Amino acid sequence: MLVLASASPRRRELLKLTGLRFAVRPAKDEINPPQTLPPAEYAVASALYKAREVASVCGKNDIVLGADTVVYLQGEIFGKPRGAEDARRMLTALSGRTHYVCTGYAVIKGGAEYTGCSVTEVEFRELSSEEIKSYIASGEPMDKAGAYGIQGRASVFVKRINGDYFNVVGLPLCEIYSKLKEIM
Amino acid sequence: MLVLASASPRRRELLKLTGLRFAVRPAKDEINPPQTLPPAEYAVASALYKAREVASVCGKNDIVLGADTVVYLQGEIFGKPRGAEDARRMLTALSGRTHYVCTGYAVIKGGAEYTGCSVTEVEFRELSSEEIKSYIASGEPMDKAGAYGIQGRASVFVKRINGDYFNVVGLPLCEIYSKLKEIM
Repeated sequence: MLVLASASPRRRELLKLTGLRFAVRPAKDEINPPQTLPPAEYAVASALYKAREVASVCGKNDIVLGADTVVYLQGEIFGKPRGAEDARRMLTALSGRTHYVCTGYAVIKGGAEYTGCSVTEVEFRELSSEEIKSYIASGEPMDKAGAYGIQGRASVFVKRINGDYFNVVGLPLCEIYSKLKEIM
Repeated sequence: MLVLASASPRRRELLKLTGLRFAVRPAKDEINPPQTLPPAEYAVASALYKAREVASVCGKNDIVLGADTVVYLQGEIFGKPRGAEDARRMLTALSGRTHYVCTGYAVIKGGAEYTGCSVTEVEFRELSSEEIKSYIASGEPMDKAGAYGIQGRASVFVKRINGDYFNVVGLPLCEIYSKLKEIM
């Protein structure tokens, strides 16, 4: 049985697209890796923590998938905003610039661990302060890394991406699907 | 009032993401531009035909949006497959290669016409003939240009895109939203 070690409703929807059957079992503890790690290493370490915690309570034949998505700009990791003011700071920084989204993932089966990550370049158009204000008022930014959801109202902010789109939403589907097919 | 001149349920869902209010009024005649046109000109001409037809039965203050999406590989336009065998031919051609998706759009307001198009590069991984067979059996390819839906089960076929993701689904949201805001 494939087990998704994530509480994210977006990851659940993404994994459904693959047609694979799976169960959802989120990790209970959110242990954060050291903030000093580079973004890709941070995301992989965080994905591995989640997958290990869930694998420890799963059967030996289960395949556990953990993932973590980080948004970064000029080396700074943008996590989920701590409030409206933090969301405003992030969206203002992203406006008119190109940033990166990295999803780290970890797959554990029978004690063997596989990890990887996918990076997508995302270019925002210039946003007016009114647009940012109204976007924050919609509530959409609050539970999302980097304070935006490309699959939601922020779709109109994104001029161009280079890489896997689904990676920006939360799982690099093509890469993870191929990896799971190899292991299963 | 903004009027979407399209019968596509995918375009309707995409336009909803912008938060704009709109009505849906598909064009009745599907007039196809000459197949000899280059892909981008073909898509723009087709979008303009649809928008003009609908604009002719709308009010003077209405803003009509038409769009057409084409998939092309080495100059050949891949439309909707004519059947399972045609879908197999297209998916086999796209496998392991990079192709282009172009959405042409036309906006008409009070007799003034604005047109544009957006091109996204899409890279497929290698697909096995079993995968292609099972994907065709799912029925998903049949109503889609190029015989695939990136937002559906074909999500796991796409390694990478370069450009606007929503353009591949059917509307370049960022570009169209900015254009509509200018006109409205």
